[in-house]
Amino acid sequence: MCYSPALYPFYENPDAIVVVTDILRASSAIVTAFMNGVERIIPVGTLEEAKVYKEKGFMVAAERDGIVRDFADFGNSPYNFTSERVGGNEIVYSTTNGTNAIRLASSGSQVLIGAYLNISALAEHIKKEGRDLLVLCAGWKNKFNLEDTLFAGALAELVLEHNQYYTICDATNGAIDLYKAAKGNMMDYIEKVAQRHRLKKNNLDDVIGYCHELDKTDLIPVLEESTLVQLIDIK
Amino acid sequence: MCYSPALYPFYENPDAIVVVTDILRASSAIVTAFMNGVERIIPVGTLEEAKVYKEKGFMVAAERDGIVRDFADFGNSPYNFTSERVGGNEIVYSTTNGTNAIRLASSGSQVLIGAYLNISALAEHIKKEGRDLLVLCAGWKNKFNLEDTLFAGALAELVLEHNQYYTICDATNGAIDLYKAAKGNMMDYIEKVAQRHRLKKNNLDDVIGYCHELDKTDLIPVLEESTLVQLIDIK
Repeated sequence: MCYSPALYPFYENPDAIVVVTDILRASSAIVTAFMNGVERIIPVGTLEEAKVYKEKGFMVAAERDGIVRDFADFGNSPYNFTSERVGGNEIVYSTTNGTNAIRLASSGSQVLIGAYLNISALAEHIKKEGRDLLVLCAGWKNKFNLEDTLFAGALAELVLEHNQYYTICDATNGAIDLYKAAKGNMMDYIEKVAQRHRLKKNNLDDVIGYCHELDKTDLIPVLEESTLVQLIDIK
Repeated sequence: MCYSPALYPFYENPDAIVVVTDILRASSAIVTAFMNGVERIIPVGTLEEAKVYKEKGFMVAAERDGIVRDFADFGNSPYNFTSERVGGNEIVYSTTNGTNAIRLASSGSQVLIGAYLNISALAEHIKKEGRDLLVLCAGWKNKFNLEDTLFAGALAELVLEHNQYYTICDATNGAIDLYKAAKGNMMDYIEKVAQRHRLKKNNLDDVIGYCHELDKTDLIPVLEESTLVQLIDIK
């Protein structure tokens, strides 16, 4: 369990399935895009890269610090990724914290995008694969954040239900205990989260409830050759 | 609140009092040394530096991964820092995680060494100074660890009792909530901590109870010109 992209080198594990999460809002938006039929998402790290794709005619979602960039078609709210916009399309996506985390994670054996929206499907896939699990929290500008950590704890709790799994990782145990403290009343707990206040300042906090809804889909975005596609799980 | 030396650049604050903690065992040992009358402690980062001091005739405490180094006079257990050994002396100290954290923290306005042993004195000093507080957890090889985070939460809880203080830091809120979950039965909670198992493997876990005892002293080690001395607080 890795609380920040800046800590990734100390947790890196080439055998692990790496689940990247950025609950408010990138990973919730990416899962939503697949729910609404997007074909492929190209995550890019810099706004310059995103601009180059835009000039090539791609549909581009890009923001920094929660603000949509001028050249972009839309920003980071899951509500922007409607089936009318993204259905059947390939889009380019650049965000403050999430995209760089996805790129880092590509040293793992498989990179998946995790959100509450697909948490049970994720947990089932991981347990079926039986590989190590590393959750990479996108954090906020390399700082620890609570909302990603709570999700990491929730996912770890589900995976640890399988008796093949155990943990001796303090970060995992800490995340599970924070999730236990929060889960009885998640929306009250999220009130104190710093990102909730950043979003509110920009009138972007309408998605917080949605981003904490459980199991709206079985779809799992997976990174294949630098592009996110829908995981085809042979069951 | 900074969970790892590797995250320090993202939390650095030149105006803040930085409290460095490495509960199992460096910061508990350093506070104990002052309780037992040490005059000065020179923290050094590398074993090479520690060896040079040893050759100059200094008394040296040095370990890596919990194991005392051959050339050293003793290792990292608080029980080694007896008044017979350290009383009135200047000693050199090098540890796995703690010493480098102390060096990093020197960009703050004041660097203090924090442990449960001096936690109330620390909180009082910080509130009296009225400056920002940044707790730097030494962690384990740059990974998050629970025992330092719990202490950070305990200290933050005490300082936040003063109405002059508030926090919007997710790491601080997370540490406080973990401490709340643990404090009712700290020794049971510490059972799951990874460092507890590392220490046990080397028969070094006899100090865990001691390192969680509250308020054995009012002494606060402070960094002055690269050396730890006793804080003289003009009350």
